[in-house]
Amino acid sequence: MNPLDDERWVRMAWARLAEPEDRVAASLIERFGRSEALELLLGGAAQARHPQAQRFAARVKDFSLERDLEQTHRCHSRVVIPGDQEWPAALDELESPPHCVWVRGPADLAALSERSVAIVGSRAATGYGQEQAAELAIGLGQRGFTVVSGAAYGIDAAAHRGALVAKAPTIAVLPCGLERCYPQGHTELLTQVRGSGLLVSELPPGSAAIRTRFLRRNRIIAALTSGTVVVEAGLRSGALNTAAHATKLGRPLAAFPGPVTSAASAGCHESIRSGAATLVTDAAEVAELVGKMGQHLLDRKRGPARPTDELGSAAAHVWATLPVQRSMEVDELSRCAGLAASEVLSALGELEAAGAAERRLDGWGRAS
Amino acid sequence: MNPLDDERWVRMAWARLAEPEDRVAASLIERFGRSEALELLLGGAAQARHPQAQRFAARVKDFSLERDLEQTHRCHSRVVIPGDQEWPAALDELESPPHCVWVRGPADLAALSERSVAIVGSRAATGYGQEQAAELAIGLGQRGFTVVSGAAYGIDAAAHRGALVAKAPTIAVLPCGLERCYPQGHTELLTQVRGSGLLVSELPPGSAAIRTRFLRRNRIIAALTSGTVVVEAGLRSGALNTAAHATKLGRPLAAFPGPVTSAASAGCHESIRSGAATLVTDAAEVAELVGKMGQHLLDRKRGPARPTDELGSAAAHVWATLPVQRSMEVDELSRCAGLAASEVLSALGELEAAGAAERRLDGWGRAS
Repeated sequence: MNPLDDERWVRMAWARLAEPEDRVAASLIERFGRSEALELLLGGAAQARHPQAQRFAARVKDFSLERDLEQTHRCHSRVVIPGDQEWPAALDELESPPHCVWVRGPADLAALSERSVAIVGSRAATGYGQEQAAELAIGLGQRGFTVVSGAAYGIDAAAHRGALVAKAPTIAVLPCGLERCYPQGHTELLTQVRGSGLLVSELPPGSAAIRTRFLRRNRIIAALTSGTVVVEAGLRSGALNTAAHATKLGRPLAAFPGPVTSAASAGCHESIRSGAATLVTDAAEVAELVGKMGQHLLDRKRGPARPTDELGSAAAHVWATLPVQRSMEVDELSRCAGLAASEVLSALGELEAAGAAERRLDGWGRAS
Repeated sequence: MNPLDDERWVRMAWARLAEPEDRVAASLIERFGRSEALELLLGGAAQARHPQAQRFAARVKDFSLERDLEQTHRCHSRVVIPGDQEWPAALDELESPPHCVWVRGPADLAALSERSVAIVGSRAATGYGQEQAAELAIGLGQRGFTVVSGAAYGIDAAAHRGALVAKAPTIAVLPCGLERCYPQGHTELLTQVRGSGLLVSELPPGSAAIRTRFLRRNRIIAALTSGTVVVEAGLRSGALNTAAHATKLGRPLAAFPGPVTSAASAGCHESIRSGAATLVTDAAEVAELVGKMGQHLLDRKRGPARPTDELGSAAAHVWATLPVQRSMEVDELSRCAGLAASEVLSALGELEAAGAAERRLDGWGRAS
């Protein structure tokens, strides 16, 4: 069979030859179709049609589909493409969807991302931020959400760890090939993630993690999930890039507040101030924000009820007028409260019934 | 002269006879006019016209304008009424404006409240909240704003103290007569406030501080100012009552964020979440929110600039591809970056000009 007739091979080849979001590749594919454009490229004929196709020349020279397949097999991963049952339809909403994704782990990518939240934030996170990320991941995990993040130091790692603690599925989207443990310090964490959840990348095996790939990876995190939560982010944090992708995709964006003295929260505060993000303080509020319509609706937060809450305004005023230590006769209460004796008596009746005032030998007082 | 012809006396009498926001008083005044309604009341004829006028009977019996004037004089205060140059027009926007206000201190109430911000919050404030309130008051003071608050423990006191530190005017609106130091622990603070700023109350001398009066006092704080900032508030804090008044009056409302683990910030977070309050983190943001149109406009907050900020996307990608420790030849860069050799060379030229890359004997590297 001609490999160019196999869409999976064609897509793998494109992922190898072009960087994520490469515009020249997109333009060639749009003009000639994915398979024919690849044929032109591999046959050295693309440059005549599109001068910038020259950028793929060095990679075309080096290209070997057999080696790619072998590497994919060696790192125990599979390639998922549109049309596969495991392909998450949400990825198609991206302006530049990945050609394909490499996936490693026992879970089903489409099923896991169906009900999922991205938890992202600074590598330079504080203890407060890491605790909140872990707590949030645990709470979302317990509510049946998959936690998606980027396996970076700081907030990302705390989020994955929280999900693992809650025995909930978690997905790490990597900015490099899946044979790599990036960052290296998270080798153990990545092993745990792929033990029950998934590692995902649009980059073929052998791809190094470099800054421009982090930024492109972030759009995958935003697209896979029903909403994104920024737990801590400085004003220049890459997490705000993921946040911007979520907004562009029309997905809800939430941010945690923190002390205004913490630079690690400044990006969150700015996102809330600008109206881009909704302030959230716990997993219940996040679930409400990203949950399907009608699910997870929360009551507005209120403090504990007080015994005087239900009193009419005259009763509340008489109660406020009653001295704490001594008693008052009705006529004195009437003068102090600015109410008629009959109004005071009626209020006292209400207060007595509510257990808030009591009749004594020398007048009325607050119930002890 | 008949005292009933003197509006100042009439208003003082009403303030003595009726609680703030008393509806029966408002209805009598609306029906008969302030002066004639008072005459009916003092002559014992009001009850025939309005049965609930009975509520004033005990106070009418006890009433003495001479004593009120003497008490006002004794506590070194003056009575300010609508029409006085010192009367703040902003108070007229209240649904139930005060009959008059007692004022003590060397400053002019109308002038001071012209450009003012209310800083309110919990008595049970944290160290963080008190620091932020003081910092905010200092920053607003330095920007020429008067800080208005309620002299309570916690946030209120920190706000007044911050203004005093900045040698800026500050106004304490009290829930009791001005001869009282409420709370007693703030005797020294109140002395300082009236040394350069003002003490204000709608309650005549001799009035005790009781809960219903706190709540009514809060509407004066909200009305006097161009905007209200809640620095810390639990879910049941009285500060949220002031906040509600500000919103009702159409004045901007702002709230400080804090750690989500702090109950003292829960009311602030809920106000921001619900859209009632704008998140603010410093005096500049508050000044922008409450300042007159066009003044105090802030640039959006950004992190520090990086040398690679201004690079084109190809240059940024080549820079990200350059290894940190070794050098790379152009053909290797071309393959790793997925760009044509000509594109790599052009990007390297841009990077060299920006001081971000350097040519070495064995290829190109990041500039050290």
